[in-house]
Amino acid sequence: MEGEAVSGAQLIAQALKAQNIEYMFGIVGIPVTEIAIAAQAVGIKYVGMRNEQAACYAASAVGYLTGRPGVCLVVSGPGFLHTLGGMANATINCWPLIVIGGSSDRNQETMGAFQEFPQVEAGRLYSKLSVRPSSLEVIPAVIEKAVRTSMYGRPGSCYIDIPGDFVNLQVNKSSVKYMECCLPPPISMAEHSAVSKAASVIVLSKQPLLIIGKGAAYSHAENNIRKLVDLCGLPFLPTPMAKGVVPDNHPNCVAAARSTALQHADVIILLGARLNWILHFGLPPRYQQDVKVIHIDICAEELGNNVRPAATLLGDINAVTEQLLEEFKKRSWKYPSNSEWWRKLRGKIKNNEERSKA
Amino acid sequence: MEGEAVSGAQLIAQALKAQNIEYMFGIVGIPVTEIAIAAQAVGIKYVGMRNEQAACYAASAVGYLTGRPGVCLVVSGPGFLHTLGGMANATINCWPLIVIGGSSDRNQETMGAFQEFPQVEAGRLYSKLSVRPSSLEVIPAVIEKAVRTSMYGRPGSCYIDIPGDFVNLQVNKSSVKYMECCLPPPISMAEHSAVSKAASVIVLSKQPLLIIGKGAAYSHAENNIRKLVDLCGLPFLPTPMAKGVVPDNHPNCVAAARSTALQHADVIILLGARLNWILHFGLPPRYQQDVKVIHIDICAEELGNNVRPAATLLGDINAVTEQLLEEFKKRSWKYPSNSEWWRKLRGKIKNNEERSKA
Amino acid sequence: MEGEAVSGAQLIAQALKAQNIEYMFGIVGIPVTEIAIAAQAVGIKYVGMRNEQAACYAASAVGYLTGRPGVCLVVSGPGFLHTLGGMANATINCWPLIVIGGSSDRNQETMGAFQEFPQVEAGRLYSKLSVRPSSLEVIPAVIEKAVRTSMYGRPGSCYIDIPGDFVNLQVNKSSVKYMECCLPPPISMAEHSAVSKAASVIVLSKQPLLIIGKGAAYSHAENNIRKLVDLCGLPFLPTPMAKGVVPDNHPNCVAAARSTALQHADVIILLGARLNWILHFGLPPRYQQDVKVIHIDICAEELGNNVRPAATLLGDINAVTEQLLEEFKKRSWKYPSNSEWWRKLRGKIKNNEERSKA
Amino acid sequence: MEGEAVSGAQLIAQALKAQNIEYMFGIVGIPVTEIAIAAQAVGIKYVGMRNEQAACYAASAVGYLTGRPGVCLVVSGPGFLHTLGGMANATINCWPLIVIGGSSDRNQETMGAFQEFPQVEAGRLYSKLSVRPSSLEVIPAVIEKAVRTSMYGRPGSCYIDIPGDFVNLQVNKSSVKYMECCLPPPISMAEHSAVSKAASVIVLSKQPLLIIGKGAAYSHAENNIRKLVDLCGLPFLPTPMAKGVVPDNHPNCVAAARSTALQHADVIILLGARLNWILHFGLPPRYQQDVKVIHIDICAEELGNNVRPAATLLGDINAVTEQLLEEFKKRSWKYPSNSEWWRKLRGKIKNNEERSKA
Repeated sequence: MEGEAVSGAQLIAQALKAQNIEYMFGIVGIPVTEIAIAAQAVGIKYVGMRNEQAACYAASAVGYLTGRPGVCLVVSGPGFLHTLGGMANATINCWPLIVIGGSSDRNQETMGAFQEFPQVEAGRLYSKLSVRPSSLEVIPAVIEKAVRTSMYGRPGSCYIDIPGDFVNLQVNKSSVKYMECCLPPPISMAEHSAVSKAASVIVLSKQPLLIIGKGAAYSHAENNIRKLVDLCGLPFLPTPMAKGVVPDNHPNCVAAARSTALQHADVIILLGARLNWILHFGLPPRYQQDVKVIHIDICAEELGNNVRPAATLLGDINAVTEQLLEEFKKRSWKYPSNSEWWRKLRGKIKNNEERSKA
Repeated sequence: MEGEAVSGAQLIAQALKAQNIEYMFGIVGIPVTEIAIAAQAVGIKYVGMRNEQAACYAASAVGYLTGRPGVCLVVSGPGFLHTLGGMANATINCWPLIVIGGSSDRNQETMGAFQEFPQVEAGRLYSKLSVRPSSLEVIPAVIEKAVRTSMYGRPGSCYIDIPGDFVNLQVNKSSVKYMECCLPPPISMAEHSAVSKAASVIVLSKQPLLIIGKGAAYSHAENNIRKLVDLCGLPFLPTPMAKGVVPDNHPNCVAAARSTALQHADVIILLGARLNWILHFGLPPRYQQDVKVIHIDICAEELGNNVRPAATLLGDINAVTEQLLEEFKKRSWKYPSNSEWWRKLRGKIKNNEERSKA
Repeated sequence: MEGEAVSGAQLIAQALKAQNIEYMFGIVGIPVTEIAIAAQAVGIKYVGMRNEQAACYAASAVGYLTGRPGVCLVVSGPGFLHTLGGMANATINCWPLIVIGGSSDRNQETMGAFQEFPQVEAGRLYSKLSVRPSSLEVIPAVIEKAVRTSMYGRPGSCYIDIPGDFVNLQVNKSSVKYMECCLPPPISMAEHSAVSKAASVIVLSKQPLLIIGKGAAYSHAENNIRKLVDLCGLPFLPTPMAKGVVPDNHPNCVAAARSTALQHADVIILLGARLNWILHFGLPPRYQQDVKVIHIDICAEELGNNVRPAATLLGDINAVTEQLLEEFKKRSWKYPSNSEWWRKLRGKIKNNEERSKA
Repeated sequence: MEGEAVSGAQLIAQALKAQNIEYMFGIVGIPVTEIAIAAQAVGIKYVGMRNEQAACYAASAVGYLTGRPGVCLVVSGPGFLHTLGGMANATINCWPLIVIGGSSDRNQETMGAFQEFPQVEAGRLYSKLSVRPSSLEVIPAVIEKAVRTSMYGRPGSCYIDIPGDFVNLQVNKSSVKYMECCLPPPISMAEHSAVSKAASVIVLSKQPLLIIGKGAAYSHAENNIRKLVDLCGLPFLPTPMAKGVVPDNHPNCVAAARSTALQHADVIILLGARLNWILHFGLPPRYQQDVKVIHIDICAEELGNNVRPAATLLGDINAVTEQLLEEFKKRSWKYPSNSEWWRKLRGKIKNNEERSKA
């Protein structure tokens, strides 16, 4: 081969590195061993696991914690199939994740190759993107697209299928379409009228409640949310995955009066949380029949699920929180701390804490 | 039955009406005839067709033209399968569409019922949502979710499966979960820094080009785009589906010099268009190697496809165009009409028109 | 290229010809036009149609009538999707069929190619085999496998995906894996004890009925079935698709007393028919609660559906009919033509015919 | 409720017992705990595991060893997804298996229920049957169909989805459609002419080889195969999964000269084995270019894969082996033990054994 050659394994490793991927979890074997070696060679931290199932859950946790996907590297057939639980979990939980699966050599397809399986197709139901590069030349482009897709919009998992014969195949570097690191995820905000509408509903509320969801944690909205809580004096409740966005020991946290808070709120500001089973679908008897929901989410299709909102704010949780913060600064509104609602919530908190101690 | 009864067919028709659905295209037969009758009874315009394939394309055109999904109503088995092309087309083209398919009676499932087929599953690959209501009581909620999902975010098709035995089954109205019309699609905007970044790139451009895509047409951005074109003096090019957003006879339209415009632009403002085959993927030799793309789209995952953008603006096309308009008003920048670039484009347009005539 | 070159289109045409394919129905366009031309050049009868839907149904009818699949040739995207109804119909009806769909060029995959769609995956639910050859060299092997799979066992449809760039690509003939025509479908017979068991049940029957199904027509069992009917004096009933296997004017045909025959039979010999909706699932009140079914089918998984059989005979319908014929020749048993059951059936036939005339 | 009531969990347990299911492996939790309890109550041996992945592999091993499916019982979402590897493995390896997965309550579907997932659809690619009973009344019928389908024809896995609300729901026993145990798998044989053809090829062979596959083990063909080996004096080779069908210490076993045997055989009798990667696809250079393959399999679609056979014998491995045995008894043919081929094989065996020792 004329010019400098590069192997499939090296292209994969370099492309992941170019996309700032730091961690790879996996189990090596035919045909992916060389990929793990190449990944280590370019400085990716490779963690060998004992079952692909655990490897995939570990990689997805990296994605949630860092906002950049971890990679799970697995062999063909059962190795790949063991990641489907983790892929589904990442996509449903909205965590970025990349799974790279080795598959059969292309020239043995349809003949009964070792662990032959339609892996791209199998990954479809569990991922945002399931794809096989059509040649070595496009590996960097496909990896860029997968990493980008896993992080942009509502995050989730992407599957990249690598035919076994790609791993050691070589290609001239000059023919490869190399890609720079994708840009950080684009941020969007709610339109002004929606922000204004939301604020108008909130200032008229008698028993408001701010629910902080996982999306708030993922978008690193902690500073703005705390400012909003402090500025407006709102009672708040974290969902299980949003624990710590504002600490539970903040005086406005009503986690210890969760049922009461949900059941009697007249206005709920839903910040990056879904009205699913965790929040009892937003429906009576766990909520007021006519509760007004201010629904804030990064995913348009989530808005209005189960309950018709009083206002819908589509955008990045942190960006929209900042919009609300600006709006309330202008309005200089604060929910009174001596309200009947706060008395009720504080009473319930005290009761529950005493009951806990006893 | 105590209380007032309502049939499945009536619930479907009323729920569609409640969601402001105006048009239904279809072919009746077992088990959906009563649905068409009920739809007409509530004032939905029903258009009988001769093949489900055409019915589905017709319904999807209504969605594109009105921004509210048309409905395609079909029988089980082949009737349903004939809509898959239209469903895929709507989803890929980003048009809202609802397909309602009758299916086998539940108590005959797995036994070899008439035209038994796993229709919900079959619809998955072609739609944003493929679902069967689990009871008559939830029909309005499922239809609200389907209509809303078809319109929110990037539009597409949704499939609703109706078991044959649901159609004439009756239920007490008091047990039904009725739903109001879903809110209009939420609008989001780009973050300020992205708008500012984009404007900075544009004002430094020497050979700028505005590409107007289908998304601009769908979001009714025509007034703001024309203002932007006039304010900034930008050459523009419509994609085939964006013809007429700004008329082709506008003096800044360079459609007649398409290849030249694409090939030599140093900055491209991509407004609701994809860098797919229609736009030659944004790649050389049809474009400059270092062309700077300002990518504006409603779908985060679209941003950065094939070319790494100079700026990404995520949001509703009309809203973001307005943001750009405000930004340029502040900057009071206008691309000079006597530039070398305009001379080149005008020369090419003249040449091409003369060649056309000859 | 050294040696003699051959294009993808030629390889496809020659391979189909080598498998004795006679008919191709389709609609040409990018990228499949050259395939149709090459098919005509090798002597395959190409029929141009106006919609892929109809083309696919036409090709599947050829398969049913000749026992050798017709081919449906379509372009990518909608062209392909319009065949899914026909593919499903062929597979569910057990007719051999080959669909060949052009698809996007491989080097544009994931980039937004013209009508890009995961067609192999889309074909899965509707076919016995859905596959893309991995190179030009294996095209004859893949086509042989598809044709063979469509005909062997229970027939059905197979989908072959051809990337657009394969069509005019050339390869050296010496590197191609050419294949001879696959062998005729293998024939299997029921085990002797099952045949004997079935005969023992039949000879003890008081009100026997032979139901002739589509499988009997497909396996060309007409001669043996007529011999069996004549030898044993059995009343028989054809399903709609088995009309003509034994003519309706045969004196033993009880089609004109269908409901009576089904409802009162104590032993039913089910010859290549399914106990699905057409036959009322074999259940009361349309059948006796304790009817004894002799279930004969080419598909093991069909045996025992809905009713627990008195005997299961797995094999080719014609071969098993011949086994039964041999068995009854040995037993020299004939159902008496002067039985109460024949009197009842003949009376009902006469009544129904008189009613028809009136 | 009038009459005697029975719960969903009880119906499932009783139906499995009625189908002679002996073993259940699983992990209990919402909503399937009561199913495990009910299974134990009817005498099914329940084995609690620590991961659904292992539970599913264990249950599939029971199926292979006993010819009757083991059951794997799992909870919704991840619990179910962890079985996909095992389900795929069972289907690809042709082992009977039943997976029963709890799923969300029906009335919470589409609302974001706990671990809501389209499980029936997810199971499709990995199973012969993936199904949810539409009511409690049909549970016994659906379980009978699943157990039967898993064992009949080529065995594989079947998935049964149980909505959470079915488990404790009650129904009047009189409305349930109870089912007897399905009949043993039907046995089919090759047609006489194929047996005769095969024998004619074999008697003319100069370097014959019998390959014994997993299908021979599954069909318990050990006695007939040993008789055939002894009667005809054939060299034989077991595949890895067929070890022990005829013991390796039988004098005709040429396992120690595997490569030589494959490479030089002029006639191969392939008994329930696939010409896949394990057998090097039956192709040169590992085989003679013109090797004659007598292909014997239970699955018609397997016959002719990769190599065009000299004869195809479709049927149960044990039954067809018996047919061959009868044929050779009539022909009284025996391959000479003093042939050049035996000398070559024995020499190679000796060499290899000596090399092993050294």
